[in-house]
Amino acid sequence: MSNSAVNAAPVITPEQLLAHWQGHRRVTRRVIEAFPEDQLFSYAVAPMRTFGELVLEFLAMDVPTLEELTSEQPRQYETPKVQDKAELLRLWDEHSRRIDELWPRLPAEVFQETRTIFGQFTSQVWDLLWYVIDNEIHHRGQGYVYLRALGIEPPPFYVRD
Amino acid sequence: MSNSAVNAAPVITPEQLLAHWQGHRRVTRRVIEAFPEDQLFSYAVAPMRTFGELVLEFLAMDVPTLEELTSEQPRQYETPKVQDKAELLRLWDEHSRRIDELWPRLPAEVFQETRTIFGQFTSQVWDLLWYVIDNEIHHRGQGYVYLRALGIEPPPFYVRD
Repeated sequence: MSNSAVNAAPVITPEQLLAHWQGHRRVTRRVIEAFPEDQLFSYAVAPMRTFGELVLEFLAMDVPTLEELTSEQPRQYETPKVQDKAELLRLWDEHSRRIDELWPRLPAEVFQETRTIFGQFTSQVWDLLWYVIDNEIHHRGQGYVYLRALGIEPPPFYVRD
Repeated sequence: MSNSAVNAAPVITPEQLLAHWQGHRRVTRRVIEAFPEDQLFSYAVAPMRTFGELVLEFLAMDVPTLEELTSEQPRQYETPKVQDKAELLRLWDEHSRRIDELWPRLPAEVFQETRTIFGQFTSQVWDLLWYVIDNEIHHRGQGYVYLRALGIEPPPFYVRD
């Protein structure tokens, strides 16, 4: 990284990245809410996972990634054992609060450092964080298809507040 | 934006953001390639758009957004008129090259400026660019569902080279 990159105006600040991520999390929460309770962990376009299972993957990555990056303690990749909508929403909100809490413990310098998380993914910290966010967008888009196929209007993609 | 933010190590540099975007574009290209010619502009999970139509939306946003940001000339939002796979791939590659060409004309300072594009979307430049990328990830995830429903294995999401 050149000195000019360090001194230039930022593309995005840590605060903006957090706000951007939390905006996406609000959309994902609305998608979970839009699913009928009896379809969240049962419906899928075969041979895919249910939207509930995809959300459990998001929860296995989001806070654990931040915990590992801020504490430098290895974390296991573990999928929460949840099978109902109310509990999934409760866990979603708990993780969103925990992300706000952990975020300030990531100093600006860390984003360009190279780290390994879950004992297997090695990359620069910005890239590890973007993977978590992009993976949420990718699979949430699949949830939109499930909702449409069920005749349910999904929440607008562009409303993030 | 505080002075400390300006002087801190960057979350992501302009060069890294370009490489990240082009990595996603390579995945999207592989998804286009994976569609059988006769399904690209005809198959969809009702009542959604075909994957070909979704890609035309990406092409209406990607280069036009960069052209407007680098020239400060208003651009129209116009969807290309393409209905076959070979021509769609040709246009995709042309836009990928054009993105590489235009990117260096975005000075680092511009990412934090507020601009209006297509005469209607006003936000900071980083947010306008992320919208283009996130929208591609979102709808490409839907293309993955279409491929699975057609019995076709989609390209891995995590392979970006």
